[in-house]
Amino acid sequence: MCDEMRHFKLTLAYDGTDFHGWQVQPGAETVQGRMREAIRLITGAEILPQGSGRTDAGVHALGQVASFSAATNIPVANLRAALNSRLPASIRIHAVEEVGPEFHARHSAHEKTYQYRLYRGEVTPPFFARYVTRHPWPLDEDAMRRAAGYVVGRHDFTSFAANDPDRAARLADADDPADNVREIYESRFDREGEELVYTVRGAGFLHHMVRNLVGTFLLAGKGRIAPEGVQEIMAARDRARAGATAPASGLWLISVRY
Amino acid sequence: MCDEMRHFKLTLAYDGTDFHGWQVQPGAETVQGRMREAIRLITGAEILPQGSGRTDAGVHALGQVASFSAATNIPVANLRAALNSRLPASIRIHAVEEVGPEFHARHSAHEKTYQYRLYRGEVTPPFFARYVTRHPWPLDEDAMRRAAGYVVGRHDFTSFAANDPDRAARLADADDPADNVREIYESRFDREGEELVYTVRGAGFLHHMVRNLVGTFLLAGKGRIAPEGVQEIMAARDRARAGATAPASGLWLISVRY
Repeated sequence: MCDEMRHFKLTLAYDGTDFHGWQVQPGAETVQGRMREAIRLITGAEILPQGSGRTDAGVHALGQVASFSAATNIPVANLRAALNSRLPASIRIHAVEEVGPEFHARHSAHEKTYQYRLYRGEVTPPFFARYVTRHPWPLDEDAMRRAAGYVVGRHDFTSFAANDPDRAARLADADDPADNVREIYESRFDREGEELVYTVRGAGFLHHMVRNLVGTFLLAGKGRIAPEGVQEIMAARDRARAGATAPASGLWLISVRY
Repeated sequence: MCDEMRHFKLTLAYDGTDFHGWQVQPGAETVQGRMREAIRLITGAEILPQGSGRTDAGVHALGQVASFSAATNIPVANLRAALNSRLPASIRIHAVEEVGPEFHARHSAHEKTYQYRLYRGEVTPPFFARYVTRHPWPLDEDAMRRAAGYVVGRHDFTSFAANDPDRAARLADADDPADNVREIYESRFDREGEELVYTVRGAGFLHHMVRNLVGTFLLAGKGRIAPEGVQEIMAARDRARAGATAPASGLWLISVRY
C-alpha cells in the first residue's frame, strides 16, 4: 500500500557563513542541498524543497520558510527532530507544520522582514564577527534614519536591483512581478547596544535590494548624499546612482508571513 | 639607535572553533601562532607571546591574557588596532597595556574564571552551536548545583586531571605546583534562559579539569551519582571514578586576575 502524499511547511534558521547561499548548485555546499539530503534520508523522497526565496552566500536566516511534499507516514511531531538529526548544526529546523497541497513557500508568501546589522564598536567580538558587518567609523545615524524613511511605500526599485543573470527566467515566471516595483511597509534604523540595526519589511524584494539600500543609506551616513537624495536615486532607475552592495555577513532573513 | 625593550599585556577574545587550541604547533592553525605572526608583522620581533595558560582545540576565550616583550616605538594606544588589522576576525585584542619586565601572563596570574555553557532547549540555534554544548535531555539541575558546591576549597583534583603527556615537563617547571592540589573559590550553576551555565573560579586548574568536573556534575544531573558522591570521587584520586570529559565547545576562559 502506498502512503498518501503529504505537504509540509518548515521554518528554519541557518548560519550562512559557510554556505554558497540557499540555492542548490553542483559541487557546492548549499542550504537547499543539505535540506534535500536530509529529506531524502528521512522520507525517501527525492525532491528539492522550495524556499520562500534565495539567500546569497554568507546571508543568515532566523526564520526562512521551505515547503515540500512527500509520501511518508512519519508523524509531523517527529519530523523536526528526525530532519535535524541529519542536518549540520549550522542549519536548524525550528518548526514543522502539515499544510494543504496549495501551500508553496515562495508563491504563498505575503511579506518578508530582513535585518541588516552594523557593528559600530571599535573591536568586533569574535563571536559576532560572522553575523554583522563591522563599521566603527563615524556615521550620521540620524541622517541614515531619515534616508531609510524615503523608501516606505510603493516604488520602482530598479536603482537598487542587482544586474540579475536569472532575470529572464524570473520574468517568465507568472508569480514574479515583471517589473521592479515593490511595496515596502517599514524601513527603519534602531540602536541595539553597539549595533545599528536596519529593519525592512515588504511584500517582496529584488535581488541584492536590501544590501544595496544599506549601501545607499551608508552614503547618507557618511554625508556623501543628503537623506532626501534617496528619492532622486530611486527616481533615476539607475543602479550606478545608488551605493555599493553592503557585505553579506550583516544580512538576516528574519521572517516570512503567509 | 636601538629602540628600548618594552613589555606588553594583551587581553584578547577568540572563537576557538577553528583553532587547534592556544599553543603553537607546526602546521596547525593555533591562536598563539596567529598572535606571533601579527606581533612579528607589526613590531618586527620574532617572539612567541606567552598565554595565561593553554586552551584546548575548540575552547573559547572572552578574556585570555598574553604577554610579550619587543623593542618597538609604536605608541601603546595604536598597538591594539595595528595587531587586530593583522589577525583573523576570530581573534580580537580588546586591550593592550604596557607593563613592567616582571609581568608574565602565566607566572603572574592569581586567579582564573571559566564558564561552561550547556544549551538545554530542544533546538540549538545555529548561531549558538559553536559556543555551547547541547544537552536537551532531562537533568536534575538542583542535584548539579549541589554537586558543584563540593569542589569549593582546597582539594586534590587528581580524579579530574587529564592524563597529561606534558606532565613531566610541567613538573620540571618551578612555577607549576608539583601536585594536583588546587584551590577553588567559586563553583556554581546558574540558569540564563535556555542555558545552564557553570562558573568556576580558582587559583589554577589542571589540564581538562573544568571539562572533567562538568562531566561529573552531569552524572549527578542524570541521577547516576548522588551530589555528595563528588566528595568520594575526589577522595579516590582516580580519574576512572569521575565522569567523561565534556566537549570543548561549551568551555570559555572568561577572565584572568593578576
